[in-house]
Amino acid sequence: MSRMWRGNPLRNEGAAMKPTGNQILAEFFRCSANILNDSDALERILAGGIEACGLGLVSLNSHCYDPIGITSIAVISESHIAIHTYPEAHHASVDIFTCSRGNEKSQHLLHYLEEKLMPATTRVVEVSRGNPLEVSRTNWITDDNSATGFDVRYRVDRELFSGLSRYQDIKVIENQDFGRMLFLDNDLQIAERDAWLYNEAMVSPVRGKLDDLSSVAILGGGDGGVLYELLKLDPGSVSVIDIDEEVIRVARTYLESICHSAFEDERVNIVLADVFEYLDGSHQFDAMIYDLTMHPESFIVMDREDYLNQLFMKMKEDLKSQGVVSLQCASEYDQKTTALVEKLLNRHFSSVKMDKKLIPSYGSMWMFASCIKT
Amino acid sequence: MSRMWRGNPLRNEGAAMKPTGNQILAEFFRCSANILNDSDALERILAGGIEACGLGLVSLNSHCYDPIGITSIAVISESHIAIHTYPEAHHASVDIFTCSRGNEKSQHLLHYLEEKLMPATTRVVEVSRGNPLEVSRTNWITDDNSATGFDVRYRVDRELFSGLSRYQDIKVIENQDFGRMLFLDNDLQIAERDAWLYNEAMVSPVRGKLDDLSSVAILGGGDGGVLYELLKLDPGSVSVIDIDEEVIRVARTYLESICHSAFEDERVNIVLADVFEYLDGSHQFDAMIYDLTMHPESFIVMDREDYLNQLFMKMKEDLKSQGVVSLQCASEYDQKTTALVEKLLNRHFSSVKMDKKLIPSYGSMWMFASCIKT
Repeated sequence: MSRMWRGNPLRNEGAAMKPTGNQILAEFFRCSANILNDSDALERILAGGIEACGLGLVSLNSHCYDPIGITSIAVISESHIAIHTYPEAHHASVDIFTCSRGNEKSQHLLHYLEEKLMPATTRVVEVSRGNPLEVSRTNWITDDNSATGFDVRYRVDRELFSGLSRYQDIKVIENQDFGRMLFLDNDLQIAERDAWLYNEAMVSPVRGKLDDLSSVAILGGGDGGVLYELLKLDPGSVSVIDIDEEVIRVARTYLESICHSAFEDERVNIVLADVFEYLDGSHQFDAMIYDLTMHPESFIVMDREDYLNQLFMKMKEDLKSQGVVSLQCASEYDQKTTALVEKLLNRHFSSVKMDKKLIPSYGSMWMFASCIKT
Repeated sequence: MSRMWRGNPLRNEGAAMKPTGNQILAEFFRCSANILNDSDALERILAGGIEACGLGLVSLNSHCYDPIGITSIAVISESHIAIHTYPEAHHASVDIFTCSRGNEKSQHLLHYLEEKLMPATTRVVEVSRGNPLEVSRTNWITDDNSATGFDVRYRVDRELFSGLSRYQDIKVIENQDFGRMLFLDNDLQIAERDAWLYNEAMVSPVRGKLDDLSSVAILGGGDGGVLYELLKLDPGSVSVIDIDEEVIRVARTYLESICHSAFEDERVNIVLADVFEYLDGSHQFDAMIYDLTMHPESFIVMDREDYLNQLFMKMKEDLKSQGVVSLQCASEYDQKTTALVEKLLNRHFSSVKMDKKLIPSYGSMWMFASCIKT
């Protein structure tokens, strides 16, 4: 529900990992293989499976319990695998934790271990690790909302798109109540039924405030909804500064009712860049609409307050005098964020206004902010 | 939860053995401790925690990922502990697996690690390992909301009461955003922070509509919130007709900020009865407030439409001419229910009005209805 983040120049996007993972918890009942108290055999199976499934073995350790039972743990480049055996019960508990998206390799390894240990029955629970921490329930998606004491979970009536871009996991689903919904890394961005409420809230601070609207910037905004609404004000030109081309492609393909043909408008300039690098003081926009997250913590090394402070400074530098800024902020229940944003905006801008609007698909009142450069 | 059954479910595979364990899966968000890329510090913390909690350290292994991130795994005499860090995201995923009954030591270790790594938020799932493999407890409660395409899930910061009455499961929890919350069979009834919005919506159709308010009935309403609000109108008498005495007792004990001392008011008559039986035409109330569910499917045998139709008829029979009825209805997204209620009310009453109000803790706009007996 916090808005899209488009990467960040302060770290190497390609190399660092987001805290998301997949964990398979399996119980192997009545294993026929007679090796549950043989640590060498268990290690061979574990190492063999890791190789067969294309995972990377880092280290392998076993411990034999007295009088019976073994724990074998493999650290792999994708996280870890643990097997605990109860030979007297012909039972093994298996954990496969991979910090990679998708569960193909984990499932492959699970089947490999089943073939070798030959359980009569296997029971499996699959857990999404990171944010959200979610015991998999098929056909539901939980919005990433760690700052509040509640979560909203949406039924996936149809999955229209699911894929990984260079920057994030992108999903478009269809839900009974909210229509098509766009999620980036499980963070709800916008929903078909109430996109107009969000877009209107974002654009309204700009409306009627400026005689000249020759150049406006949308920071983020790859779904095109704010852009579509903004074009109604007849600006001279609009720059959409979004790092992820794939989000724009997905929006054009699956979210036409949100972006319409806004991206094809000749006044629109799509800039595939990180706003933190792009805003260098040379553009001097009349207005800026901040359609990015206020929760960059999972992507940045520096402190959030420092980061937002610097970003707001850069925004100010690249804005004309009397230029208007409109920002999405956070759930009204994420009071820490709201207070922080208000404080930082007051440091750099004037006429700071905090407003709240109900965005039904977000499940709570949403805070929006606006301010002026003086 | 996706639980997959493999093998023959008719065979009792668990009869001969008791491999049982407890596993805590925790996500530490936004850790303040600046040691997530320091394997020595992590190992010290892990070893210190294992000792402090009375667990037995067998071996400790760490691996530093390139360019950043650490996996530290301890084999302990009770099974294993794994920590995966994502320093750039200030995030750690923690697994505590113990092959012993009870979870005191695991919980102790979890708190120890929280103190050292200082997460802003922790999310926990607890799993029973072995037979059964079951997600045994989470500190979340999901509101029962099967009619809509979304669910709201609340973090249980503290459980104040949990018990079974003769009729239902009753829970009072405390949540960061909504304060104390009452759930009946996991169905959210009322929350401390916004009870006043709900109670006001329920009472307002009665306000100023009647010269004489000598006798009013609240159907349901065992939490006392509507009663408290209604007493402000200075009615001659109020009958609270609720089948479950235990709900009233729990409300008086744990929800005083909602019911205040309303139940002690001398104008109040508590009737422990089923409204369907109690409303026999003999009472002739001036007004009625329907604080019952519109989803009785789980406790009635008859068709919902028949049931509500008969109940509304009984209400009409026990109301004076020109008597007012106010009803809570359903989420605005539960359009089937809203349409059904509107249709049935129009069959028996006049001046039917449907209204919607935001009740933030419900996670959506809520429909309320009012009508008059002519």
